[in-house]
Amino acid sequence: MAVLSMDAMLLTTDVDIRYFSGFLTQFFQSPTRPWFLVVPKAGKPVAVIPTIGAVAMSRTWIEDIRTWSSPHATDDGVSLLAQTLSEAGGRIGLPRIGIPMGRESALRMPLNDFARLRQQVDGTDFIDASPLIRALRLVKSEREIDKIAHACASVGDAFDAAPDLFSIGQSDVEAFRAFKIACLKQGVDDVSYLVGGAGPGGYGDIISPPTGRAIAHGDVLVLDTGCTYDGYFCDFDRNFAFGAADDPARRAYDTVYCATEAGLAAARPGASCADLYKAMQSVLGVMQAEGDVGRLGHGLGMQLTEGASNTPWDETELRPGMVMTLEPSLAFGAGKVMVHEENIVIRDGEPQLLSRRAPPELPVLGSCSVT
Amino acid sequence: MAVLSMDAMLLTTDVDIRYFSGFLTQFFQSPTRPWFLVVPKAGKPVAVIPTIGAVAMSRTWIEDIRTWSSPHATDDGVSLLAQTLSEAGGRIGLPRIGIPMGRESALRMPLNDFARLRQQVDGTDFIDASPLIRALRLVKSEREIDKIAHACASVGDAFDAAPDLFSIGQSDVEAFRAFKIACLKQGVDDVSYLVGGAGPGGYGDIISPPTGRAIAHGDVLVLDTGCTYDGYFCDFDRNFAFGAADDPARRAYDTVYCATEAGLAAARPGASCADLYKAMQSVLGVMQAEGDVGRLGHGLGMQLTEGASNTPWDETELRPGMVMTLEPSLAFGAGKVMVHEENIVIRDGEPQLLSRRAPPELPVLGSCSVT
Repeated sequence: MAVLSMDAMLLTTDVDIRYFSGFLTQFFQSPTRPWFLVVPKAGKPVAVIPTIGAVAMSRTWIEDIRTWSSPHATDDGVSLLAQTLSEAGGRIGLPRIGIPMGRESALRMPLNDFARLRQQVDGTDFIDASPLIRALRLVKSEREIDKIAHACASVGDAFDAAPDLFSIGQSDVEAFRAFKIACLKQGVDDVSYLVGGAGPGGYGDIISPPTGRAIAHGDVLVLDTGCTYDGYFCDFDRNFAFGAADDPARRAYDTVYCATEAGLAAARPGASCADLYKAMQSVLGVMQAEGDVGRLGHGLGMQLTEGASNTPWDETELRPGMVMTLEPSLAFGAGKVMVHEENIVIRDGEPQLLSRRAPPELPVLGSCSVT
Repeated sequence: MAVLSMDAMLLTTDVDIRYFSGFLTQFFQSPTRPWFLVVPKAGKPVAVIPTIGAVAMSRTWIEDIRTWSSPHATDDGVSLLAQTLSEAGGRIGLPRIGIPMGRESALRMPLNDFARLRQQVDGTDFIDASPLIRALRLVKSEREIDKIAHACASVGDAFDAAPDLFSIGQSDVEAFRAFKIACLKQGVDDVSYLVGGAGPGGYGDIISPPTGRAIAHGDVLVLDTGCTYDGYFCDFDRNFAFGAADDPARRAYDTVYCATEAGLAAARPGASCADLYKAMQSVLGVMQAEGDVGRLGHGLGMQLTEGASNTPWDETELRPGMVMTLEPSLAFGAGKVMVHEENIVIRDGEPQLLSRRAPPELPVLGSCSVT
């Protein structure tokens, strides 16, 4: 912040506020109330929050907690925030305030209120805090890695129980439900994200909820899940064939599996995210346009996906402690996509797998009725 | 839109895009990619979205789907969006574009990209679309109400199983987990929100996750949950005493229960949200400052909380089809809060309860070891 001549940062989102305060709540799902954390260049952050959050915030390391009764008829924290920002300068002249403005960021307050804030702190310079925050969050502490590892292990146990959870004739809605319950039983706090589905020989929609269709012989089921433990995500998928797997599905699976192997071999300190991309892409060959997901993996932590993307243009250098996903995907057949994902942490030397390695061949469930 | 001389609306959030397109996905949890829906004053909406969402979006009623490979090194949909907005005018002159800017809204795209967009559509007038969208979403269709009712009934079944789920000596983490599994088994799609905890004679933090503390004799456990079914939320809480309930907890429970009764009696078409507030507040008396949650209930639907708040200043008129929560809360004892919440739909005459009515007296679990 000193280098950037930044007097304070203004944070408005769940994750940004949590990263600097430790304040963990699902309450941000309610869009009603704005929440603010002001991080000065010296001293502890100041919370400017609705009264309803005061008790919970007082359990964190934050001491200066300023509250207002929210929702408010005319002034939902704007004046209180403006006053707090004005103090942040702590010197003659107007403060320079950092706000995340870059890639993956958003301002979690109404635009009308932001305009009012700018009026009240007229002349204050707002500059982009995204690069600073991104750099901080890229490398995880061992405590952060432990939480991600716990989520990965729990979900790995749930995937290992697949033969008991999924069956031909079962509705995909029921398959999703059974998997969510299994993840909770294995020890995650929340199944925050579960997408995928099943289709004959493969599936093409890797971001949607189930449709109610029953799983049939010859289907391939893909489940991609982000489960959380103490506020940290895992993010990986697994594929299962039912009864039998046809050759195109097997070949697509083999290809993305080998691409992940190439990613694991390339994931070394000093290499870049672009190097990871190139290593996996060289195995995949030219992907078809309909399978274009823009990248082959990403950062992982307090969010399902976070800073650093495995793309041809992201030259972020891999460093020990960075948690990344390797996520090669391949369009095949008529509108199908095969995705394979592992979660790793960059270490000196070889990366450490946080997700239990997927089987090298597409697993087939229900191929035999003998039990 | 015609009255407001609005040529198109630009929508960026999960819920706004879903409301006008039917596009349901958990993928918005990834902050990486921006998503846009442009709703012109005539004709169908136009989706301007990452390629990864094209298959899922094609299953909705949207026909004009424009995609780009995202994440993008230099232009994450901004130029494609600017071009789409320029077309929206469809006449000489620059279009007037509505964006949600008011209470409860946020812009889900980086501020830097929004600045670039404004440059590319230089001269375009951006006006506030919040009042328009809020008015549309206030009254639910019967199909929407059915989904909320299903979520409410499932969670009601889970709460009814409380004697089998919760016990003295159990960690609150395990109590939360057992309840989440019960909700899933009873038929919700996701337990998106579960907060609360247990403390001797009551609990003071109604927005946090569990702490790991074991439930003890004399505790009161509060669980407040928003579960979803097909994208629609329920939102209500229940309280349980363990072993025995002390008088302050019983009295607080009785008071908030009676406040809900007053709310039910006041919830008639033509009354206002402020009337709901006053009816409940008159039972509660003067609330203590530390219990100030700013309102006594809110709208409910695609979000855990949505437009219209039961506050002294919200004069929104209740109309048949509006789904509301009645949520009186009372500070009592040393930093404790008793909250009671029901979900209702405004009908001609008496409101319809969507949540199964809570018991009129604080239920006591584990008061007898005979089974």
